[in-house]
Amino acid sequence: MANKLRIDSLQSSTAAGSGHPTSCLSCAELMSCLFFSELQPEDEFILSKGHAAPILWAAYAEAGFIPPEELATLRRIDSVLEGHPTPKMPLVRVATGSLGQGLSAGVGMALSKRLRKSTGRIYVLLGDGECAEGSVWEAANSAAYYRLNNLCALVDGNRLGQSEPTMHQHDLAPYRQKFEAFGWDAMIIDGHSVQAILAALTHARRSTKPCAVIAKTIKGKGVSFLENREGWHGKPLKGEQLAEALKEIGKADISLPSKMGLSTTDSTVVDFETNGYRRGEMVATRDAFGKALVSCGKKNSTVVAIDGDVKNSTMTEYFFNKFPERGFQSFIAEQNMVGMAVGFSAMGFNPFVATFSTFLTRAHDFIRMAQYSMANIKFVGSHAGISIGPDGPSRMGLEDIPMFLSMPKAVVLYPSDAVSTECLVREMSMHKGISYLRTTREKTPVIYDNGEQFPIGGLKVVRRSSEDKALVVTAGITLQEAITAHDRLKERNIHTRVIDLYSLQPLDGDALLKNARECNNNVVAVEDHYCNAFAAVLSAVLTDVVYLCVRDIPRSGQPQELLKRYGIDATAIVKMVEQML
Amino acid sequence: MANKLRIDSLQSSTAAGSGHPTSCLSCAELMSCLFFSELQPEDEFILSKGHAAPILWAAYAEAGFIPPEELATLRRIDSVLEGHPTPKMPLVRVATGSLGQGLSAGVGMALSKRLRKSTGRIYVLLGDGECAEGSVWEAANSAAYYRLNNLCALVDGNRLGQSEPTMHQHDLAPYRQKFEAFGWDAMIIDGHSVQAILAALTHARRSTKPCAVIAKTIKGKGVSFLENREGWHGKPLKGEQLAEALKEIGKADISLPSKMGLSTTDSTVVDFETNGYRRGEMVATRDAFGKALVSCGKKNSTVVAIDGDVKNSTMTEYFFNKFPERGFQSFIAEQNMVGMAVGFSAMGFNPFVATFSTFLTRAHDFIRMAQYSMANIKFVGSHAGISIGPDGPSRMGLEDIPMFLSMPKAVVLYPSDAVSTECLVREMSMHKGISYLRTTREKTPVIYDNGEQFPIGGLKVVRRSSEDKALVVTAGITLQEAITAHDRLKERNIHTRVIDLYSLQPLDGDALLKNARECNNNVVAVEDHYCNAFAAVLSAVLTDVVYLCVRDIPRSGQPQELLKRYGIDATAIVKMVEQML
Repeated sequence: MANKLRIDSLQSSTAAGSGHPTSCLSCAELMSCLFFSELQPEDEFILSKGHAAPILWAAYAEAGFIPPEELATLRRIDSVLEGHPTPKMPLVRVATGSLGQGLSAGVGMALSKRLRKSTGRIYVLLGDGECAEGSVWEAANSAAYYRLNNLCALVDGNRLGQSEPTMHQHDLAPYRQKFEAFGWDAMIIDGHSVQAILAALTHARRSTKPCAVIAKTIKGKGVSFLENREGWHGKPLKGEQLAEALKEIGKADISLPSKMGLSTTDSTVVDFETNGYRRGEMVATRDAFGKALVSCGKKNSTVVAIDGDVKNSTMTEYFFNKFPERGFQSFIAEQNMVGMAVGFSAMGFNPFVATFSTFLTRAHDFIRMAQYSMANIKFVGSHAGISIGPDGPSRMGLEDIPMFLSMPKAVVLYPSDAVSTECLVREMSMHKGISYLRTTREKTPVIYDNGEQFPIGGLKVVRRSSEDKALVVTAGITLQEAITAHDRLKERNIHTRVIDLYSLQPLDGDALLKNARECNNNVVAVEDHYCNAFAAVLSAVLTDVVYLCVRDIPRSGQPQELLKRYGIDATAIVKMVEQML
Repeated sequence: MANKLRIDSLQSSTAAGSGHPTSCLSCAELMSCLFFSELQPEDEFILSKGHAAPILWAAYAEAGFIPPEELATLRRIDSVLEGHPTPKMPLVRVATGSLGQGLSAGVGMALSKRLRKSTGRIYVLLGDGECAEGSVWEAANSAAYYRLNNLCALVDGNRLGQSEPTMHQHDLAPYRQKFEAFGWDAMIIDGHSVQAILAALTHARRSTKPCAVIAKTIKGKGVSFLENREGWHGKPLKGEQLAEALKEIGKADISLPSKMGLSTTDSTVVDFETNGYRRGEMVATRDAFGKALVSCGKKNSTVVAIDGDVKNSTMTEYFFNKFPERGFQSFIAEQNMVGMAVGFSAMGFNPFVATFSTFLTRAHDFIRMAQYSMANIKFVGSHAGISIGPDGPSRMGLEDIPMFLSMPKAVVLYPSDAVSTECLVREMSMHKGISYLRTTREKTPVIYDNGEQFPIGGLKVVRRSSEDKALVVTAGITLQEAITAHDRLKERNIHTRVIDLYSLQPLDGDALLKNARECNNNVVAVEDHYCNAFAAVLSAVLTDVVYLCVRDIPRSGQPQELLKRYGIDATAIVKMVEQML
């Protein structure tokens, strides 16, 4: 069967004219043992070394999930068999292709199985090269901490990276030592011996720890002119080379049953119970988020929360205290936190992921890949903007909005008070896909009445009159600055309209346009963010907007001092409106 | 002296009303031993656990670099003593405050010392909590690979994180095992014993490997009501508590000499030798970059290149082959790659960092922090956009531009042909700060003559006539599409102007505005990127721009098929211009 998978992989990548056949050949025995002996209906498999996609498609085909002739469509614009695995092919739970991400998703899946009291196991196939990614060790740490003996990592130790040999080449002992030091059971085996692989998998099944099977393999195994040779990474064979290779491999007329299944894991819609807030009460939106998350958790057992040792800052603490079995600590490892969420999502849970908004940048590549996994994850970033004050720039979220905007389908929300935060957490929890809620460290006054609705894609006009001459568009902590500016300007008989743009993506462009026109197109946008966030959004509908935003690298100071210094406080708004008119 | 540093840290954080005094108290002996015994003029120190800034400032004050009375200005808006270390205080080489970044910078610095044949050593103080960050293990890997026995990591094992105890608490053996498994010399010591610390540092100095000193410490050490207690992270003492604490610590009237120095490390300007290209020749801009990098390296010995096992894709390979001693392999560990560059930059080198543009997102938090380190780094991202084709979305750089734009001082460049690429590499190499060059996988025709100038902040009008009725603004691979569209439209007697916007930040707004006006403000922008990149830039100067950009999650396919499918090819441009007119 391994040879049959080899043949399939060579043929499909040659048909595609690109791909990574030698990276498939090294793991053919690992794949055949997994798919045709080990994997049970409740089990899950992640191909973390996503560039070996051809052999994954081959295994699915030989297991009967894909018509074999479809393999020839690899990488075509009309095929679900993409160059790297994506859930366009429904058996794929997690998109891979950016290395070092699969094991974290495996941790999330293994925890999901445990929560569901399933006996299912999770298998993750990694390359040796990708073990240089720190995220692999974040995941390893996490798996050991949660004693995930239902998780098995297989490392395809084929010695050769893309551009040169890997750090440890065929000296596989360091991998074993690393996994052991990170709290795993680990062993080194001959990755081309079916017997050795099956024995290792049996051992792993009985282990009390997560288990790493480090397989010594040969890149290009089975074809003499490819074996263990540099310069063949990511190169398909040409016609004659293919013929030669197939001749060497010989016949592989075999078919084997696979027990692998495709369980459905659809998550349910989240119901919700609101907290009450009083107008004028001072509540940080991060705190309102924390309480709303508890409300989500009460009504829905699929809600889980993952935090990176800042739960007393993001306020997921409330959830952790109320539902300790559904609160997961990733410690200070943000990539793993997001990877775990991808795994939870793939298993039908509704994960909330929270840290400081700026530390979400640590997981940018994981977040980017989560969209390709079609994951359902609710991101929450606290401590947005310069208004966090004395901690200084390293802790200020000033680049988070464009990061989320850059995903076409992501929802981006930025509430200004407790009532809207609570309502938006509800909206997020009902939304399927990637959504992001940006919260504020400082307390802000409650300005809305309980029960007011905040649909995704909406906005609120919070101050208006028939005489408005300018429009101030803002969200978050600067909304209060805009309201103060409105009041000061009104004293001088200058009427301004104020919009709370709590939904940045999707955007209510029509309402913005209408309000702008009613204010003679005098629009000032104010944001506690570097300058490219609101502009990226508003430019789709409004012209000639003046932006008040953070234009310089900020520094430590008191929140109000900083709002003033960087020109996004009420005084700056008043001045800009006056100048404009 | 340790107690003196404790007193300073408690007093300054109380004066500031915020800060992390208990995290300072645990490392007081480590800091006193380093600053008043170990550190020599050629040595460097990085406080990776940046939240312990008060004790760093205290050590500088006691060592005579800061007037002691300045400590009371901690975190104030007019002080260089920020909440977390930044180079506003000139002794700070590397900004910290996002955890897990210091060790990679240490690797870069240690390699710099070696290149300079300096005997200087690098000391990095980490927290135990931050050892959960995978980037720490990327750095550890890298240090062992390069046998950096001039690098010493000290881990302040104080057991308590921000929100709960760390994973391993006071069981420090796992840290030792991890460092050893990653190829380090490692030992566990009593972190409050001056004798033990000095002995460990002596051992480290003699080690043939990088050495990790894992110190068992007590958070809040020295003050009974703070010692080893949860709930005190990031909390300054109130007046009475401070008095009580100072009473407990007692007198510390000591002054000790420090040998620490502040070497100057200014990098020189890079000179350059151009390659020749023929108009019409097909050259990938990534290839032109690779050759230009060799030109940089020839003229300037401070140029170094760091790659993440894709040097045969980014084409830094040419540099690695020509200057093996200045080409550094970070393997598949992008965070460490950027962290190393921060270290090289701090030591006066001119580092170029290259990987696939999309994999730079893996290092977003490091890149963000690099700006606060005032680092001089040239980032190069290859394989931009959907035009990479069959590898599929995981490998397509579609979010890199906003990531770099979100840094106010970053230069963002996106050349379309070999001549402009080469010239822009020269411009980058002379620019001091963060700059980013986006390169293309596919070959594109050379459209400029050798010798043409491409200043940062400029643009090129590549097609123009006095009858132009629409303006197409683009860069990179879509420039050729715009030129094709221009030619097709011209056949129908529709004249379009075409701009190559090779410098996205800074932007030549005046020229854009002038050209737009001359084309009746009919502007189409075309980008091989998700939709928020050009909009964020152009909206500052132009109104009513129509954007052709990638609006959906893409997929595998052939480059030209994908340009068509996602509506950024010549046909889409022709159609949009016709519609507009």
